[in-house]
Amino acid sequence: MRTPADNAQLALLLEVSGTPKPGNVDRRHEYEDLRFEHFLAGAVGAGAGLRAAEAGATVGAAFEESVEGMRHQRGGNTQFGCLLNLVPLVRAAAVGPLSPPAVRDVCAGTTVADACDFYRAFDYVDVAVGDLPPDVDLPDVGLASDATAAIREQGLTLWDVMERSAAVDANAREWVEGFPRAFAAAERILDDDGPATDRVARAFLRLLAEEPDTLVRAQHGDGVAREVQERVAEVGDDLDAAAALAEEYVDRGVNPGTTADLTAAAAFVALERGWEV
Amino acid sequence: MRTPADNAQLALLLEVSGTPKPGNVDRRHEYEDLRFEHFLAGAVGAGAGLRAAEAGATVGAAFEESVEGMRHQRGGNTQFGCLLNLVPLVRAAAVGPLSPPAVRDVCAGTTVADACDFYRAFDYVDVAVGDLPPDVDLPDVGLASDATAAIREQGLTLWDVMERSAAVDANAREWVEGFPRAFAAAERILDDDGPATDRVARAFLRLLAEEPDTLVRAQHGDGVAREVQERVAEVGDDLDAAAALAEEYVDRGVNPGTTADLTAAAAFVALERGWEV
Repeated sequence: MRTPADNAQLALLLEVSGTPKPGNVDRRHEYEDLRFEHFLAGAVGAGAGLRAAEAGATVGAAFEESVEGMRHQRGGNTQFGCLLNLVPLVRAAAVGPLSPPAVRDVCAGTTVADACDFYRAFDYVDVAVGDLPPDVDLPDVGLASDATAAIREQGLTLWDVMERSAAVDANAREWVEGFPRAFAAAERILDDDGPATDRVARAFLRLLAEEPDTLVRAQHGDGVAREVQERVAEVGDDLDAAAALAEEYVDRGVNPGTTADLTAAAAFVALERGWEV
Repeated sequence: MRTPADNAQLALLLEVSGTPKPGNVDRRHEYEDLRFEHFLAGAVGAGAGLRAAEAGATVGAAFEESVEGMRHQRGGNTQFGCLLNLVPLVRAAAVGPLSPPAVRDVCAGTTVADACDFYRAFDYVDVAVGDLPPDVDLPDVGLASDATAAIREQGLTLWDVMERSAAVDANAREWVEGFPRAFAAAERILDDDGPATDRVARAFLRLLAEEPDTLVRAQHGDGVAREVQERVAEVGDDLDAAAALAEEYVDRGVNPGTTADLTAAAAFVALERGWEV
């Protein structure tokens, strides 16, 4: 049977294969410089880090290793956010029954060293991040070596970093709340039927209809993020209608990547809870 | 960087993603009961066996483990033939420079125990095999436990089994000849340009134009196998023309699976020789 690390790798592959996911790379859509093949290579390369998480590595070390492995392809950042979600989920699944409190405990147990590892992972790929509110004090992710000194000086754990980022990053919010949206989406995947890649696409559409995508907000502003949310909500579960949106958003370069990260987390939880592919 | 086992897993994923590959499952084509997602899960599940091959397991044991891992999905046999090719290639790449003589040495060094492991792998999935010529004496693959007794009694190594199967199975022929077609196809992948999945599709088309597919021959007869070869040869490198053939052959259920297995081997060799995805 597949281990938690295997399921995480499969979740990465099912996420990128689910189609249509308007604006994202999928089986039928890609960008000229960010293609389907880059995500395949990213998922393979992340394997060792995911297996380290399963075997007991700290969240930060396993995350850094998975991102270092992921980067050996020409697309740049393919799955940084997915891995940020998957690593604590794999840790939690490796040590006991997977549940929101169990993964929240893993996240709450992270240390200053985990936070330093997290910042080091930004050295491997360019990651788009939203501006923090003016009252939030966190080192800039563009300066890993300086950042780790500041992290140590302030005594920030990875949990602290995520808590301070939660207002602008839906992944960070999931992280400190025990992944409630991912667990709910996993239940919908389990209740759904049909091909796995269709189920993943419907899970993505529903997540995107729930909340504006924080990567779209960071890259294109709140107005575009709300427009995407509203138009996807109108589409509902209709994959044919979503396909037309997919063409449009790829043309416009509007990529709801945070929702894809949450979808990968949801696919992982569904696989751990018995989803047979 | 990716290890040989990682490259083998990526080769499996690139193979199934290459489109169009007339008659095969790919990013844009699938059968109702054999879908893209089954190949993703098969590639993930095969990982542990491929890593065992890299770490020094015997060819037979690593192959059996990889097939056992592959089968945990609902599509049945997704990558049996691919893994038969990839396991000795991974072994050869793990111990030194990868070359046709090096992999031929690995294959020539297989034992009776490897042959027994190979037969046991047929218990995990239904594998379509061609009828052997009347003068070839090999145990039936449908009866693993009886077969291993017969294998031991006759003292057949896995190399012997492949040598006796070479007339009806292009994978077996490659196996005993040091994978000449796969190495040649790898050079073409390296010389080609454009997206990885297009290169894989063109490598597949060229391999299929060279020789009739032995799985098509086993399932549909020599006439259909030659028809496929000739029509693919007419298409040449034209992926748009190949796309029309892909629709037709999926509708007819004509699946040139052995050529897909050779394509996975070619993708692996290309990755080991520096193909950057």
